[in-house]
Amino acid sequence: MPPFLKGKVIFFVTSNIHKFNEARRILREYKISTAMLKNVDAVEVQDDDIENVAKANAIDAVRKCKLSIVVEDTGLFIKALKDFPGPYSSFVHRTIGNDGILRLMENITDRSARFKSIVAFLDPLIAKPFCFTGEAQGKIIKEKRGSREFGFDPIFVPSNSTETFAEMSIEEKNQHSHRALAFRKFAKWYSQISGLQKS
Amino acid sequence: MPPFLKGKVIFFVTSNIHKFNEARRILREYKISTAMLKNVDAVEVQDDDIENVAKANAIDAVRKCKLSIVVEDTGLFIKALKDFPGPYSSFVHRTIGNDGILRLMENITDRSARFKSIVAFLDPLIAKPFCFTGEAQGKIIKEKRGSREFGFDPIFVPSNSTETFAEMSIEEKNQHSHRALAFRKFAKWYSQISGLQKS
Repeated sequence: MPPFLKGKVIFFVTSNIHKFNEARRILREYKISTAMLKNVDAVEVQDDDIENVAKANAIDAVRKCKLSIVVEDTGLFIKALKDFPGPYSSFVHRTIGNDGILRLMENITDRSARFKSIVAFLDPLIAKPFCFTGEAQGKIIKEKRGSREFGFDPIFVPSNSTETFAEMSIEEKNQHSHRALAFRKFAKWYSQISGLQKS
Repeated sequence: MPPFLKGKVIFFVTSNIHKFNEARRILREYKISTAMLKNVDAVEVQDDDIENVAKANAIDAVRKCKLSIVVEDTGLFIKALKDFPGPYSSFVHRTIGNDGILRLMENITDRSARFKSIVAFLDPLIAKPFCFTGEAQGKIIKEKRGSREFGFDPIFVPSNSTETFAEMSIEEKNQHSHRALAFRKFAKWYSQISGLQKS
Protein backbone atom coordinates (compact mmCIF):
# COMPACT_ATOMS: atom_id res chain seq x y z
CA MET A 1 0.00 0.00 0.00
CA PRO A 2 1.93 3.07 -1.24
CA PRO A 3 1.53 5.73 1.46
CA PHE A 4 2.67 8.47 -0.96
CA LEU A 5 -0.77 8.27 -2.62
CA LYS A 6 -2.80 8.85 0.53
CA GLY A 7 -4.63 12.16 0.55
CA LYS A 8 -3.33 13.19 -2.84
CA VAL A 9 -5.62 15.07 -5.21
CA ILE A 10 -6.08 13.33 -8.53
CA PHE A 11 -6.13 15.60 -11.54
CA PHE A 12 -8.48 14.59 -14.35
CA VAL A 13 -6.93 15.85 -17.57
CA THR A 14 -9.88 16.83 -19.75
CA SER A 15 -11.43 19.88 -21.36
CA ASN A 16 -14.94 18.49 -20.99
CA ILE A 17 -16.75 19.67 -17.86
CA HIS A 18 -19.48 17.04 -18.24
CA LYS A 19 -16.94 14.22 -18.23
CA PHE A 20 -15.28 15.77 -15.20
CA ASN A 21 -18.54 16.10 -13.26
CA GLU A 22 -19.49 12.51 -14.05
CA ALA A 23 -16.12 11.29 -12.76
CA ARG A 24 -16.15 13.52 -9.68
CA ARG A 25 -19.55 12.23 -8.61
CA ILE A 26 -18.25 8.67 -8.67
CA LEU A 27 -14.87 9.35 -7.08
CA ARG A 28 -16.50 11.31 -4.26
CA GLU A 29 -18.31 8.13 -3.16
CA TYR A 30 -14.85 6.70 -2.54
CA LYS A 31 -13.57 9.87 -0.80
CA ILE A 32 -11.14 10.50 -3.63
CA SER A 33 -10.42 14.20 -4.16
CA THR A 34 -10.36 15.36 -7.76
CA ALA A 35 -9.63 18.49 -9.71
CA MET A 36 -10.03 19.27 -13.38
CA LEU A 37 -6.87 20.00 -15.34
CA LYS A 38 -7.39 21.75 -18.68
CA ASN A 39 -5.11 22.75 -21.53
CA VAL A 40 -2.21 20.50 -20.63
CA ASP A 41 -1.54 20.36 -24.36
CA ALA A 42 -0.80 16.66 -24.07
CA VAL A 43 0.01 14.85 -27.28
CA GLU A 44 -2.72 12.48 -28.46
CA VAL A 45 -1.34 9.49 -30.34
CA GLN A 46 -2.98 7.73 -33.29
CA ASP A 47 -3.53 4.10 -32.51
CA ASP A 48 -6.40 1.77 -33.35
CA ASP A 49 -6.32 0.54 -29.74
CA ILE A 50 -7.71 3.20 -27.40
CA GLU A 51 -5.87 1.65 -24.45
CA ASN A 52 -2.59 2.59 -26.14
CA VAL A 53 -3.95 6.07 -26.78
CA ALA A 54 -4.90 6.53 -23.12
CA LYS A 55 -1.56 5.19 -21.86
CA ALA A 56 0.46 7.46 -24.11
CA ASN A 57 -1.65 10.45 -23.09
CA ALA A 58 -1.16 9.66 -19.42
CA ILE A 59 2.62 9.38 -19.81
CA ASP A 60 2.80 12.63 -21.72
CA ALA A 61 0.59 14.47 -19.20
CA VAL A 62 2.67 13.32 -16.22
CA ARG A 63 5.87 14.30 -18.03
CA LYS A 64 4.43 17.79 -18.46
CA CYS A 65 2.70 18.28 -15.08
CA LYS A 66 4.44 16.05 -12.51
CA LEU A 67 1.06 15.37 -10.88
CA SER A 68 -1.09 12.39 -10.02
CA ILE A 69 -3.42 12.24 -13.02
CA VAL A 70 -6.16 10.30 -14.78
CA VAL A 71 -7.05 10.56 -18.45
CA GLU A 72 -10.05 9.02 -20.10
CA ASP A 73 -10.60 7.96 -23.68
CA THR A 74 -13.83 6.67 -25.21
CA GLY A 75 -14.67 5.16 -28.57
CA LEU A 76 -17.81 3.93 -30.28
CA PHE A 77 -17.18 0.65 -32.12
CA ILE A 78 -19.79 -0.34 -34.71
CA LYS A 79 -19.51 -3.98 -35.75
CA ALA A 80 -20.88 -3.71 -39.29
CA LEU A 81 -18.49 -0.79 -39.96
CA LYS A 82 -15.40 -2.77 -38.86
CA ASP A 83 -15.24 -0.86 -35.58
CA PHE A 84 -15.50 2.59 -37.16
CA PRO A 85 -15.36 5.29 -35.73
CA GLY A 86 -13.40 3.69 -32.87
CA PRO A 87 -10.46 5.75 -31.59
CA TYR A 88 -11.38 8.69 -33.84
CA SER A 89 -14.94 9.05 -32.53
CA SER A 90 -14.52 12.64 -31.49
CA PHE A 91 -13.22 13.76 -34.91
CA VAL A 92 -15.92 11.75 -36.70
CA HIS A 93 -18.59 13.31 -34.49
CA ARG A 94 -17.29 16.80 -35.29
CA THR A 95 -17.31 16.15 -39.04
CA ILE A 96 -19.95 13.71 -40.32
CA GLY A 97 -21.78 13.53 -36.97
CA ASN A 98 -24.74 11.35 -36.00
CA ASP A 99 -26.36 11.92 -39.39
CA GLY A 100 -23.28 10.54 -41.13
CA ILE A 101 -23.34 7.40 -38.99
CA LEU A 102 -27.06 6.88 -39.67
CA ARG A 103 -26.40 7.23 -43.39
CA LEU A 104 -23.57 4.67 -43.27
CA MET A 105 -25.93 2.29 -41.42
CA GLU A 106 -28.84 2.56 -43.88
CA ASN A 107 -30.09 -0.93 -44.89
CA ILE A 108 -27.65 -2.62 -42.53
CA THR A 109 -29.30 -5.32 -40.43
CA ASP A 110 -26.62 -5.98 -37.82
CA ARG A 111 -26.83 -2.78 -35.74
CA SER A 112 -24.73 -3.95 -32.80
CA ALA A 113 -22.20 -1.54 -31.37
CA ARG A 114 -20.38 -0.85 -28.15
CA PHE A 115 -18.94 2.08 -26.31
CA LYS A 116 -15.59 1.39 -24.72
CA SER A 117 -13.99 3.68 -22.19
CA ILE A 118 -10.48 3.52 -20.78
CA VAL A 119 -9.39 5.34 -17.65
CA ALA A 120 -5.61 5.51 -17.27
CA PHE A 121 -4.02 6.50 -13.97
CA LEU A 122 -0.43 7.60 -13.53
CA ASP A 123 1.59 9.23 -10.78
CA PRO A 124 5.14 10.62 -11.14
CA LEU A 125 6.31 7.99 -8.59
CA ILE A 126 4.80 5.05 -10.50
CA ALA A 127 6.60 3.37 -13.39
CA LYS A 128 3.71 2.89 -15.84
CA PRO A 129 0.00 3.70 -16.24
CA PHE A 130 -2.75 1.50 -14.80
CA CYS A 131 -5.78 1.09 -17.06
CA PHE A 132 -9.43 0.38 -16.26
CA THR A 133 -11.98 -0.54 -18.91
CA GLY A 134 -15.72 -0.02 -19.04
CA GLU A 135 -17.96 -1.20 -21.87
CA ALA A 136 -21.58 -0.66 -22.84
CA GLN A 137 -22.99 -3.09 -25.38
CA GLY A 138 -25.97 -1.94 -27.41
CA LYS A 139 -27.20 -1.00 -30.86
CA ILE A 140 -27.41 1.89 -33.27
CA ILE A 141 -31.00 2.90 -33.83
CA LYS A 142 -32.42 4.29 -37.09
CA GLU A 143 -33.25 7.84 -36.01
CA LYS A 144 -31.88 10.18 -33.37
CA ARG A 145 -33.82 10.26 -30.11
CA GLY A 146 -33.40 12.32 -26.96
CA SER A 147 -32.69 15.90 -26.07
CA ARG A 148 -29.19 15.74 -24.60
CA GLU A 149 -26.95 16.02 -27.68
CA PHE A 150 -23.72 14.61 -26.26
CA GLY A 151 -21.58 12.72 -28.76
CA PHE A 152 -23.26 9.67 -30.23
CA ASP A 153 -25.70 9.37 -27.28
CA PRO A 154 -28.84 10.11 -29.39
CA ILE A 155 -28.31 7.09 -31.68
CA PHE A 156 -27.16 4.46 -29.13
CA VAL A 157 -29.45 2.27 -27.02
CA PRO A 158 -27.63 0.10 -24.44
CA SER A 159 -28.64 -3.58 -24.26
CA ASN A 160 -30.47 -3.39 -20.97
CA SER A 161 -32.67 -0.45 -21.96
CA THR A 162 -35.14 0.82 -24.54
CA GLU A 163 -33.97 4.43 -24.25
CA THR A 164 -30.99 6.07 -25.91
CA PHE A 165 -28.31 7.53 -23.66
CA ALA A 166 -29.62 10.96 -24.72
CA GLU A 167 -33.10 10.16 -23.42
CA MET A 168 -31.93 9.06 -19.98
CA SER A 169 -31.46 11.31 -16.98
CA ILE A 170 -27.79 11.85 -16.10
CA GLU A 171 -28.20 9.62 -13.03
CA GLU A 172 -29.71 6.86 -15.13
CA LYS A 173 -27.02 7.11 -17.79
CA ASN A 174 -24.34 6.94 -15.13
CA GLN A 175 -25.61 3.54 -14.08
CA HIS A 176 -25.20 2.03 -17.54
CA SER A 177 -22.37 4.06 -18.90
CA HIS A 178 -19.01 2.68 -20.00
CA ARG A 179 -17.30 5.76 -18.57
CA ALA A 180 -18.93 5.41 -15.14
CA LEU A 181 -18.02 1.72 -15.13
CA ALA A 182 -14.36 2.43 -15.87
CA PHE A 183 -14.18 5.16 -13.23
CA ARG A 184 -15.82 2.86 -10.66
CA LYS A 185 -13.22 0.17 -11.33
CA PHE A 186 -10.46 2.73 -10.96
CA ALA A 187 -11.98 4.13 -7.74
CA LYS A 188 -12.19 0.68 -6.13
CA TRP A 189 -8.60 -0.12 -7.02
CA TYR A 190 -7.32 3.29 -5.94
CA SER A 191 -9.09 3.31 -2.61
CA GLN A 192 -7.62 -0.13 -1.87
CA ILE A 193 -4.03 0.68 -2.73
CA SER A 194 -4.10 4.07 -1.02
CA GLY A 195 -5.90 2.75 2.09
CA LEU A 196 -9.05 4.86 1.67
CA GLN A 197 -12.47 3.55 2.77
CA LYS A 198 -15.66 3.95 0.77
CA SER A 199 -18.22 6.16 2.56
CA MET B 1 25.12 25.21 -47.07
CA PRO B 2 25.49 22.51 -44.42
CA PRO B 3 28.28 20.21 -45.65
CA PHE B 4 27.23 17.47 -43.21
CA LEU B 5 24.24 16.70 -45.45
CA LYS B 6 26.26 16.12 -48.64
CA GLY B 7 26.24 12.51 -49.81
CA LYS B 8 24.03 11.34 -46.96
CA VAL B 9 21.38 8.72 -47.62
CA ILE B 10 17.89 9.87 -46.71
CA PHE B 11 15.72 7.25 -45.07
CA PHE B 12 12.03 7.35 -45.96
CA VAL B 13 10.14 6.03 -42.94
CA THR B 14 7.18 4.15 -44.41
CA SER B 15 5.77 0.66 -44.62
CA ASN B 16 4.28 1.29 -48.05
CA ILE B 17 6.52 0.18 -50.91
CA HIS B 18 4.43 2.09 -53.49
CA LYS B 19 4.92 5.36 -51.65
CA PHE B 20 8.62 4.63 -51.38
CA ASN B 21 8.99 3.86 -55.10
CA GLU B 22 7.12 7.03 -56.03
CA ALA B 23 9.44 9.10 -53.83
CA ARG B 24 12.60 7.35 -54.97
CA ARG B 25 11.80 8.01 -58.63
CA ILE B 26 11.53 11.73 -57.94
CA LEU B 27 14.53 12.01 -55.62
CA ARG B 28 16.70 10.15 -58.09
CA GLU B 29 16.22 12.98 -60.59
CA TYR B 30 17.94 15.18 -58.03
CA LYS B 31 20.70 12.63 -57.32
CA ILE B 32 19.41 12.18 -53.79
CA SER B 33 20.04 8.67 -52.42
CA THR B 34 17.16 7.07 -50.54
CA ALA B 35 16.46 3.93 -48.59
CA MET B 36 13.23 2.60 -47.15
CA LEU B 37 13.03 2.32 -43.38
CA LYS B 38 10.25 0.07 -42.06
CA ASN B 39 8.95 -0.77 -38.62
CA VAL B 40 10.48 2.15 -36.78
CA ASP B 41 7.49 1.93 -34.50
CA ALA B 42 7.24 5.69 -34.47
CA VAL B 43 4.38 7.20 -32.52
CA GLU B 44 1.68 8.74 -34.68
CA VAL B 45 -0.05 11.68 -33.00
CA GLN B 46 -3.73 12.64 -33.31
CA ASP B 47 -4.05 16.14 -34.64
CA ASP B 48 -6.51 17.66 -37.08
CA ASP B 49 -3.58 19.35 -38.82
CA ILE B 50 -1.55 16.79 -40.78
CA GLU B 51 1.49 19.09 -40.72
CA ASN B 52 1.63 18.66 -36.94
CA VAL B 53 1.24 14.92 -37.38
CA ALA B 54 4.13 14.75 -39.84
CA LYS B 55 6.38 16.95 -37.67
CA ALA B 56 5.77 14.88 -34.55
CA ASN B 57 6.40 11.66 -36.48
CA ALA B 58 9.66 13.03 -37.86
CA ILE B 59 10.88 14.06 -34.40
CA ASP B 60 9.98 10.69 -32.94
CA ALA B 61 11.65 8.79 -35.79
CA VAL B 62 14.92 10.73 -35.49
CA ARG B 63 14.93 10.25 -31.73
CA LYS B 64 14.66 6.50 -32.33
CA CYS B 65 16.98 6.09 -35.35
CA LYS B 66 19.50 8.97 -35.31
CA LEU B 67 19.33 9.11 -39.11
CA SER B 68 18.53 11.66 -41.78
CA ILE B 69 14.86 10.90 -42.47
CA VAL B 70 11.71 11.93 -44.30
CA VAL B 71 8.19 11.01 -43.34
CA GLU B 72 5.10 11.62 -45.43
CA ASP B 73 1.50 12.06 -44.41
CA THR B 74 -1.50 12.40 -46.69
CA GLY B 75 -5.14 13.22 -46.08
CA LEU B 76 -8.25 13.51 -48.21
CA PHE B 77 -10.30 16.56 -47.25
CA ILE B 78 -13.92 16.61 -48.47
CA LYS B 79 -15.48 20.06 -48.23
CA ALA B 80 -19.12 19.02 -47.74
CA LEU B 81 -18.06 16.63 -44.95
CA LYS B 82 -16.20 19.36 -43.02
CA ASP B 83 -12.82 17.99 -44.15
CA PHE B 84 -13.57 14.40 -43.19
CA PRO B 85 -11.69 11.99 -43.37
CA GLY B 86 -8.66 14.33 -43.18
CA PRO B 87 -5.85 13.15 -40.91
CA TYR B 88 -7.58 9.81 -40.29
CA SER B 89 -7.88 8.87 -43.98
CA SER B 90 -6.02 5.63 -43.61
CA PHE B 91 -8.22 4.37 -40.74
CA VAL B 92 -11.37 5.49 -42.56
CA HIS B 93 -10.23 3.70 -45.71
CA ARG B 94 -9.63 0.49 -43.75
CA THR B 95 -13.06 0.61 -42.10
CA ILE B 96 -15.85 2.24 -44.15
CA GLY B 97 -13.74 2.45 -47.34
CA ASN B 98 -14.62 4.07 -50.66
CA ASP B 99 -18.17 2.70 -50.45
CA GLY B 100 -18.68 4.47 -47.12
CA ILE B 101 -17.51 7.79 -48.58
CA LEU B 102 -19.81 7.41 -51.59
CA ARG B 103 -22.72 6.71 -49.26
CA LEU B 104 -21.96 9.81 -47.18
CA MET B 105 -21.85 11.85 -50.41
CA GLU B 106 -25.21 10.63 -51.80
CA ASN B 107 -27.38 13.59 -52.91
CA ILE B 108 -24.63 16.08 -52.06
CA THR B 109 -24.09 18.61 -54.83
CA ASP B 110 -20.78 20.17 -53.78
CA ARG B 111 -18.36 17.30 -54.51
CA SER B 112 -15.14 19.30 -54.16
CA ALA B 113 -12.28 17.71 -52.29
CA ARG B 114 -8.52 17.86 -52.08
CA PHE B 115 -5.66 15.58 -51.29
CA LYS B 116 -2.96 17.17 -49.18
CA SER B 117 0.43 15.65 -48.61
CA ILE B 118 3.14 16.76 -46.22
CA VAL B 119 6.74 15.66 -46.47
CA ALA B 120 8.73 16.36 -43.30
CA PHE B 121 12.53 16.19 -43.30
CA LEU B 122 14.71 15.95 -40.21
CA ASP B 123 18.34 15.18 -39.49
CA PRO B 124 19.84 14.56 -36.04
CA LEU B 125 22.00 17.70 -36.53
CA ILE B 126 19.03 19.95 -37.35
CA ALA B 127 16.91 21.59 -34.66
CA LYS B 128 13.42 21.09 -36.12
CA PRO B 129 11.66 19.47 -39.09
CA PHE B 130 11.26 21.19 -42.45
CA CYS B 131 7.88 20.62 -44.13
CA PHE B 132 6.86 20.62 -47.78
CA THR B 133 3.25 20.62 -48.92
CA GLY B 134 1.64 19.27 -52.08
CA GLU B 135 -2.04 19.56 -52.91
CA ALA B 136 -4.34 18.13 -55.57
CA GLN B 137 -7.71 19.84 -55.96
CA GLY B 138 -10.50 17.81 -57.48
CA LYS B 139 -13.84 16.17 -56.84
CA ILE B 140 -15.42 13.00 -55.52
CA ILE B 141 -17.24 11.18 -58.30
CA LYS B 142 -20.40 9.09 -57.86
CA GLU B 143 -19.03 5.62 -58.60
CA LYS B 144 -15.63 4.01 -58.30
CA ARG B 145 -13.59 3.95 -61.51
CA GLY B 146 -10.19 2.47 -62.32
CA SER B 147 -8.33 -0.72 -61.62
CA ARG B 148 -5.57 0.40 -59.26
CA GLU B 149 -7.25 0.19 -55.83
CA PHE B 150 -4.94 2.45 -53.83
CA GLY B 151 -6.62 4.40 -51.05
CA PHE B 152 -9.29 6.79 -52.26
CA ASP B 153 -7.82 6.95 -55.79
CA PRO B 154 -10.86 5.27 -57.47
CA ILE B 155 -13.29 8.00 -56.36
CA PHE B 156 -11.13 11.12 -56.87
CA VAL B 157 -10.73 13.03 -60.15
CA PRO B 158 -8.17 15.86 -60.03
CA SER B 159 -9.25 19.23 -61.47
CA ASN B 160 -7.10 19.11 -64.58
CA SER B 161 -8.27 15.65 -65.66
CA THR B 162 -11.31 13.54 -66.48
CA GLU B 163 -9.77 10.34 -65.11
CA THR B 164 -9.61 9.17 -61.51
CA PHE B 165 -6.16 8.66 -60.00
CA ALA B 166 -6.90 4.90 -60.20
CA GLU B 167 -7.43 5.09 -63.97
CA MET B 168 -4.15 6.88 -64.67
CA SER B 169 -0.82 5.22 -65.35
CA ILE B 170 1.64 5.60 -62.48
CA GLU B 171 3.67 8.09 -64.56
CA GLU B 172 0.58 10.14 -65.26
CA LYS B 173 -0.55 10.12 -61.64
CA ASN B 174 2.90 11.23 -60.55
CA GLN B 175 2.54 14.39 -62.59
CA HIS B 176 -0.65 15.46 -60.82
CA SER B 177 -0.19 13.92 -57.44
CA HIS B 178 -0.02 15.84 -54.16
CA ARG B 179 2.65 13.42 -52.92
CA ALA B 180 4.88 13.87 -55.96
CA LEU B 181 4.47 17.63 -55.67
CA ALA B 182 5.54 17.65 -52.04
CA PHE B 183 8.53 15.39 -52.73
CA ARG B 184 9.57 17.61 -55.65
CA LYS B 185 9.53 20.69 -53.41
CA PHE B 186 11.58 18.85 -50.84
CA ALA B 187 14.07 17.60 -53.46
CA LYS B 188 14.64 21.10 -54.85
CA TRP B 189 15.24 22.53 -51.41
CA TYR B 190 17.46 19.66 -50.33
CA SER B 191 19.63 19.71 -53.43
CA GLN B 192 20.15 23.44 -52.93
CA ILE B 193 21.09 23.32 -49.26
CA SER B 194 23.31 20.27 -49.66
CA GLY B 195 25.00 21.55 -52.83
CA LEU B 196 23.71 18.78 -55.14
CA GLN B 197 22.95 19.45 -58.83
CA LYS B 198 19.88 18.14 -60.67
CA SER B 199 20.83 15.69 -63.44
